Amino acid sequence: MVVVMVAGALPEQVEFVKERLVALGFQPHLIKGVSRIVIGAVGDRRTIDAATLENLPGVEKVIPIMKPYKLASREAKEADSVVQVGRVCIGGGSVTVMAGPCAVENREQLFKAARLVRQAGAAVLRGGAFKPRTSPYSFQGLAEKGLRLLAEAAAQTGLASVTEVIDQHSLEIAKDYVDILQIGARNMQNFHLLRAVGRAGKPVLLKRGPSATIEEWLMAAEYIMSEGNENVILCERGIRTFERLTRNTLDLSAVSLVKILSHLPVVVDPSHATGDRRLVEPMSKAALAAGADGLLIEVHPDPPKALCDGQQSLYPEQFAHLMQELKVIAAATGRTVNGSAPCKQNRSA
Amino acid sequence: MVVVMVAGALPEQVEFVKERLVALGFQPHLIKGVSRIVIGAVGDRRTIDAATLENLPGVEKVIPIMKPYKLASREAKEADSVVQVGRVCIGGGSVTVMAGPCAVENREQLFKAARLVRQAGAAVLRGGAFKPRTSPYSFQGLAEKGLRLLAEAAAQTGLASVTEVIDQHSLEIAKDYVDILQIGARNMQNFHLLRAVGRAGKPVLLKRGPSATIEEWLMAAEYIMSEGNENVILCERGIRTFERLTRNTLDLSAVSLVKILSHLPVVVDPSHATGDRRLVEPMSKAALAAGADGLLIEVHPDPPKALCDGQQSLYPEQFAHLMQELKVIAAATGRTVNGSAPCKQNRSA
Amino acid sequence: MVVVMVAGALPEQVEFVKERLVALGFQPHLIKGVSRIVIGAVGDRRTIDAATLENLPGVEKVIPIMKPYKLASREAKEADSVVQVGRVCIGGGSVTVMAGPCAVENREQLFKAARLVRQAGAAVLRGGAFKPRTSPYSFQGLAEKGLRLLAEAAAQTGLASVTEVIDQHSLEIAKDYVDILQIGARNMQNFHLLRAVGRAGKPVLLKRGPSATIEEWLMAAEYIMSEGNENVILCERGIRTFERLTRNTLDLSAVSLVKILSHLPVVVDPSHATGDRRLVEPMSKAALAAGADGLLIEVHPDPPKALCDGQQSLYPEQFAHLMQELKVIAAATGRTVNGSAPCKQNRSA
Amino acid sequence: MVVVMVAGALPEQVEFVKERLVALGFQPHLIKGVSRIVIGAVGDRRTIDAATLENLPGVEKVIPIMKPYKLASREAKEADSVVQVGRVCIGGGSVTVMAGPCAVENREQLFKAARLVRQAGAAVLRGGAFKPRTSPYSFQGLAEKGLRLLAEAAAQTGLASVTEVIDQHSLEIAKDYVDILQIGARNMQNFHLLRAVGRAGKPVLLKRGPSATIEEWLMAAEYIMSEGNENVILCERGIRTFERLTRNTLDLSAVSLVKILSHLPVVVDPSHATGDRRLVEPMSKAALAAGADGLLIEVHPDPPKALCDGQQSLYPEQFAHLMQELKVIAAATGRTVNGSAPCKQNRSA
Repeated sequence: MVVVMVAGALPEQVEFVKERLVALGFQPHLIKGVSRIVIGAVGDRRTIDAATLENLPGVEKVIPIMKPYKLASREAKEADSVVQVGRVCIGGGSVTVMAGPCAVENREQLFKAARLVRQAGAAVLRGGAFKPRTSPYSFQGLAEKGLRLLAEAAAQTGLASVTEVIDQHSLEIAKDYVDILQIGARNMQNFHLLRAVGRAGKPVLLKRGPSATIEEWLMAAEYIMSEGNENVILCERGIRTFERLTRNTLDLSAVSLVKILSHLPVVVDPSHATGDRRLVEPMSKAALAAGADGLLIEVHPDPPKALCDGQQSLYPEQFAHLMQELKVIAAATGRTVNGSAPCKQNRSA
Repeated sequence: MVVVMVAGALPEQVEFVKERLVALGFQPHLIKGVSRIVIGAVGDRRTIDAATLENLPGVEKVIPIMKPYKLASREAKEADSVVQVGRVCIGGGSVTVMAGPCAVENREQLFKAARLVRQAGAAVLRGGAFKPRTSPYSFQGLAEKGLRLLAEAAAQTGLASVTEVIDQHSLEIAKDYVDILQIGARNMQNFHLLRAVGRAGKPVLLKRGPSATIEEWLMAAEYIMSEGNENVILCERGIRTFERLTRNTLDLSAVSLVKILSHLPVVVDPSHATGDRRLVEPMSKAALAAGADGLLIEVHPDPPKALCDGQQSLYPEQFAHLMQELKVIAAATGRTVNGSAPCKQNRSA
Repeated sequence: MVVVMVAGALPEQVEFVKERLVALGFQPHLIKGVSRIVIGAVGDRRTIDAATLENLPGVEKVIPIMKPYKLASREAKEADSVVQVGRVCIGGGSVTVMAGPCAVENREQLFKAARLVRQAGAAVLRGGAFKPRTSPYSFQGLAEKGLRLLAEAAAQTGLASVTEVIDQHSLEIAKDYVDILQIGARNMQNFHLLRAVGRAGKPVLLKRGPSATIEEWLMAAEYIMSEGNENVILCERGIRTFERLTRNTLDLSAVSLVKILSHLPVVVDPSHATGDRRLVEPMSKAALAAGADGLLIEVHPDPPKALCDGQQSLYPEQFAHLMQELKVIAAATGRTVNGSAPCKQNRSA
Repeated sequence: MVVVMVAGALPEQVEFVKERLVALGFQPHLIKGVSRIVIGAVGDRRTIDAATLENLPGVEKVIPIMKPYKLASREAKEADSVVQVGRVCIGGGSVTVMAGPCAVENREQLFKAARLVRQAGAAVLRGGAFKPRTSPYSFQGLAEKGLRLLAEAAAQTGLASVTEVIDQHSLEIAKDYVDILQIGARNMQNFHLLRAVGRAGKPVLLKRGPSATIEEWLMAAEYIMSEGNENVILCERGIRTFERLTRNTLDLSAVSLVKILSHLPVVVDPSHATGDRRLVEPMSKAALAAGADGLLIEVHPDPPKALCDGQQSLYPEQFAHLMQELKVIAAATGRTVNGSAPCKQNRSA
């Protein structure tokens, strides 16, 4: 940590900062610059907030040197983490496709969806039962009834399953039905929920918030991991920008950068990121080329009849075609797309 | 609602959209443009999502004409709403200042804070007991113990009180201790929590999310109001932009615009918006000049010792000075700053 | 400047950085941290780009300590600068209103506008002759013919004048007709144009770019000042964000912060920032309360007939009313609105 | 175009809008909605600004239906455009790599760079001679001397060349030395410069502005094309967002979307977008997978000694490796990377 004093800081202010640093367990090193004094503080920044020093009299700013996250960092664990979900391995050199409808609408729709994504080569079935909608007048999901259908469809097709939980209540219900618990973008900084899924004993798919920085995203993973749950899968789903022709702006450089900064697997959701089914195929391919460990894709047996997100849901034949394309791109990056065959063990050390 | 067909849409696609519109209760009006067909749909858009039409074959886009929120809109209620909290009236032509520390830290700190904000002329005491922190290693608040102190300090000084609730659990505890329940920026789209505070029978202070549009903010208010709770106070607290010298960018034009679009009172939090105590005074004055009904300000008896947000907390003497300045600006806009004297009745019709 | 080495940087990499720093005129101070080495570099950062060090092997990042601008900084000049334009003083404790139409359209329109803004109490007449339009099919301005009308109208009413220049060519023409040369938002980083207006010998109104940080804005001022022209007036006009109900987001905290960081006067353009005439009055008042030294406002004798920006142009009676309101707010902040009376001399030291 | 009247608009206001529409050459179609009147206007929107109607009394908003650009649109020309530069074809199903240093620094550096990019398989040599720098104290480029070196190095290696022009003056000089004129991100809305390169008779590489929407980017292309120059190559180089770990956020969905909306070739600059050489390879591969027609990449014979952008410049061996990878990805998307062999004729109809 580096503490920059204001130009003309008083000697007693400098002294006070040094004392405070020592009290916090740091060793202060004074550097007298041309116009101001800078104090290098040697120690473990993570135990304190930089902000608590920033408001000491005479302090201009505090610059952290170490990353604020520990467990999620590549420095803590050099090898890629692999999250095993049933027979599927996410991360570690293969590509996993999770697919299915935005929401579980009814038995027929979901089972059709499950069969078609299975047939095309996906490994995980997605389907929402608790839908956080911007309007209180929109369809809000089938809740437990939807989860029951999801579990059944997954079992019947041999797929793993993932669904979003939106609070303590839905978490309690969902954890008995699905393989992966999803934290949606809007809940990325719902810290109590993060702690709760950290204790739920199931793999967690953690979406990046629409205006979260990469560092905040990794801090959210840290929350989950600090409860003892290492099975975190990160999911990039677009950030909010001024661009209006796409729903969000898919940030693929974040995917590549997170693969450098962290050992956790990262998947990409091109459906929510773009909100436009025409962009799902190119963005899926780009995501794999950028190094993503998998994809989360919305498919519906009959998109024009979808109760939500129909305009970004692929038609069955589009999804089948996409899966073919993905196999080619995966091969071009030295990987294969996971089917439902068991993954090789001990991929992570 | 206006449905724009793609150039070259087939007659049967147009027919299908018309039929769907009729089935949804709209009257379709066809306009043949130079290069494409546009269908005006007369009816109440709020019952359906525009998106469900957007994915019909041959549809380019769907443009909503009506606003998606109803209860929160100025069209639903022309007169300004006034939220009464104990003896304090928020909105309706007066200015209410809510002030206090970021977090309740201990009895001495809080009672000092309560006395000083009361003395300077604030009407509501703020203090956090459940702190959503970006790092799992930061101070997380005193929980119920903090609420008990807050209730006591408010009672002793004759101030009303406001505190943030972060989930169902904290809401259950807090609603027995405080006068106003605050929904923090990160929970603005936590729809289940919005519904829950809508049923809690207490006024709600609803912060705008850091990347929420004005429309989404009003939709969040709609969620609360649709549960029968009309006592919603909106709070602008800065949005996330690329600017790095301020924590967020305070969006004061949103305040003025919301006063046009909605009847709800709007207050401003210059402390979180800027993250810099030097900017709190000018932004507080600007907020009043922009038409805000009040302010939410962080003050600490001893900011350098604050456990959170110290760099944006005012010193006691700064707050006292600010209150003097605010009285002048309030007067210049034809208003007065609420003290703890009872508000005049029947301010809203 | 602080150079942070990567964890595990080799001794020869550290040595190489130190040597390079010495060669660049810095004194390096080594601090061995828990996980990495940090080198404090004492000297004048402005002579080099931090980036040239950032790509040395073993360097993780370079953190500048000093601000990158010099002449524009409050450290370089403590007292507020006052820019004198004819008899008008901009900055230094008074409020200057610049007003007029988006574009000079014809003699009648401009002279009407000039008389009405003069009568209401403005000190400077604005009017565009070279219009940078997003569409090549839109009205592009009257060029020199417009400038001639502007000069005439200003002379007749005793107002000073301001117009935008968009390149070397328009600058050459405009500098003989107007009192203040405006650099538009889109040209804020057109560095050659900045240099050129720096040499033109006229006061410059420098708009902030729609996605420029405060630091980049001050660097643009530095460009002008580094050519010897100290008469720079900064103008905040809104930044691009995700918000869609206002054209841009007016960043008033930038105004207050720039008044701390720099000695230059700052004015605000609420018309372009909001794109909505209903928001011009509240944002004008908020700007003064935030400490702005003046305003740039679009007024048109007949807005529905305006060739550009009509929806943000005030009607004559709205402008007259606004000026009355501004006098009250100016008084509440201890200032007066400049009319066309000569300003007091020696306001700046 | 659809004109939405305010709720409660007066009959004479509706009449006035209709008359104005007729006068502008539109046929108005009235639709009476539940709460307001909507007027569909049939005709060619491009001749007028929507804004000129938006400020008529009683108008709430004007919604354009047609795209504001014509020549650049896919509707105007269905087949992909191919821009031929010497023997190189950009667009139309092959992949073109343009590479070289940020700035031309001296003969040795540039000739080394030229040879190495040629050897690795690039087709175009890049090198800046006029550098728009945010600080007036940074290296500003070699100007004409640099262009002479660029032309010589390109000739010697058989590469085509591209360089940035920043104003009329640099354009006049550069057009005699290089094959492609680049408009930098900061000049994307420098409309006079756009017109000037439109008349210069050379292919233009048009970078997207850091906060430009896709529509504004295509409008900038329209400016160039409206002067008769159809040889426009679009270049995505990242947009400004709140993310701080990358210099900008590379917007690859914009690339895929522009390929749908426009017939123009699109290339990607991963170097400026990320500012981080570790991200150049994954983003280059992702760009090709997203459908980009080529790449613009910074390479330097000795990055630690680069005078600008060294931290994002590839080392020679990194570039050679990247080119191998790109060939694999190009093949996986059914394309080949252009070398310096002549392109097949008549690729565009």
